[in-house]
Amino acid sequence: MTKPLYGAIEAGGTKFVCGVGSGPEAVIERTTIETTTPRATLAGTVAFFREAVERHGELAALGIASFGPIDCRPSSSSYGRITSTPKEGWRETDFVGIMREALSIPIGFDTDVNAAALAEWRWGCARGRSNCLYVTVGTGIGGGFVVNGETLKGLLHPEMGHVRVTREQGDEFGGNCPFHGSACLEGMAAGPAIEKRWGAAAHTLPPAHQAWAWEAGYLAQAIVNWVVTLSPEAIVLGGGVMQQGHLFGPIRSRVRLLLNDYIQAPEILEESASYIQAPGLGTQSGLLGALALAMDARK
Amino acid sequence: MTKPLYGAIEAGGTKFVCGVGSGPEAVIERTTIETTTPRATLAGTVAFFREAVERHGELAALGIASFGPIDCRPSSSSYGRITSTPKEGWRETDFVGIMREALSIPIGFDTDVNAAALAEWRWGCARGRSNCLYVTVGTGIGGGFVVNGETLKGLLHPEMGHVRVTREQGDEFGGNCPFHGSACLEGMAAGPAIEKRWGAAAHTLPPAHQAWAWEAGYLAQAIVNWVVTLSPEAIVLGGGVMQQGHLFGPIRSRVRLLLNDYIQAPEILEESASYIQAPGLGTQSGLLGALALAMDARK
Repeated sequence: MTKPLYGAIEAGGTKFVCGVGSGPEAVIERTTIETTTPRATLAGTVAFFREAVERHGELAALGIASFGPIDCRPSSSSYGRITSTPKEGWRETDFVGIMREALSIPIGFDTDVNAAALAEWRWGCARGRSNCLYVTVGTGIGGGFVVNGETLKGLLHPEMGHVRVTREQGDEFGGNCPFHGSACLEGMAAGPAIEKRWGAAAHTLPPAHQAWAWEAGYLAQAIVNWVVTLSPEAIVLGGGVMQQGHLFGPIRSRVRLLLNDYIQAPEILEESASYIQAPGLGTQSGLLGALALAMDARK
Repeated sequence: MTKPLYGAIEAGGTKFVCGVGSGPEAVIERTTIETTTPRATLAGTVAFFREAVERHGELAALGIASFGPIDCRPSSSSYGRITSTPKEGWRETDFVGIMREALSIPIGFDTDVNAAALAEWRWGCARGRSNCLYVTVGTGIGGGFVVNGETLKGLLHPEMGHVRVTREQGDEFGGNCPFHGSACLEGMAAGPAIEKRWGAAAHTLPPAHQAWAWEAGYLAQAIVNWVVTLSPEAIVLGGGVMQQGHLFGPIRSRVRLLLNDYIQAPEILEESASYIQAPGLGTQSGLLGALALAMDARK
């Protein structure tokens, strides 16, 4: 018996990555579609999956790991939609409805970061742990969480980039969050905040630059809040800014210093490199997360 | 067939409340035992349950909702113990081991606040919601969380009282947390912090006192962090300090102001009185939480 084949969409604000596969090491087709209007982008996405079906046969389910905010609460009347996004034209797009209409298969739908947390927990660096926190630090900052095999949803879904931070000593940047100014993590530590603060692209700043000490400080403040709230067994930091691998050491040290021996766990006291860590799936967490959503939707 | 009978322990730092019952509205015996040494306290507890068994017959299981920190991870080699507590004599007490030895029944073991969250979710004001955050504000501050019917555990268990806060404008109190000074919620907003700051017992301060504006501010800061991290569908605030019912209104307003329309949910935008709310089970959340743990342990 051949393994069932799944469709996966990592739906980002600048591009959609679509794939077809039967498992994390068996993605047999993949394409990238620029994110423009919902109509054009979703038409291209549907066309890719229809062609894949012609070549390989039916898909058992589809997983969508989407930029947000979205409504991913199955009991909600607006389930499946992109909701209050500032992204031109996408507000109230019935993402799941359109894909279901076109493909007629079960669909799993969650945030990109919840999906990435699921992939890292199932196949990546958090395998075997009871839960997993995944945070992306890039153009924006977002966090997803998996516990007991399920992603965390509730009132809406987590919006961890907007956790509150205190100004790092000496930093006078006014903050870049249109909602929270300098009071939240995304306003002080996402890529655009670094670039505005220093007037230079983040990746051009050398490792010894003050920018990175502050960056580690803000991320450590947020991680402390997540540690005491979620008690994560693994903290995975991905996204463009975390390509600066030199950040991990200072982040681990600052987390330990801020917690000040309160949490008596060797993972924190010994600044374990397998506790606060880079994605085990590299840049594939998102697409494989969508694949995991598809596999769960079929059940 | 008669309903099975369960034992429940709400194990606090000053007293143990023990009960026997078959459900939340059928607690047929109850006693209070002062928390002294582990030996004396646990002997008194065992004696209560043995006498209850003589009168009513066997217990199907026992639930323990304990002060902490504890090890409540079933896979851990030190599962069932009270761990690094500063409480005299209790460090490394094998709470579950001692009770299992004495009673030979299945035992459920969790933090007092996780248990209270479970009770409020199952029988109280969060019934029917997908998750529930329970926070107690008293001598200390702690938080528990239930999602998909299970309490949140991981590296250890949540320690939500130590979430970070920013000084409220004008407040120059140095903070009361031995680990985090003025940087965490417990250090600024637990009962003892209020009393130290003002030199008066918290319950003697009138509702219009500046103390309460700051108290609402600190709690609102913490709730914002919990909202963006956990996406709770219900936030239940219990404990001695929350007997000040006038705090709820200002807390809801401050949460809305701090989030600044970022979370587009009517529960927050309309300052819903059934979102941030007092315990539906009154002061019984803890004991009934222990009962819920017992019922789950039998399964």
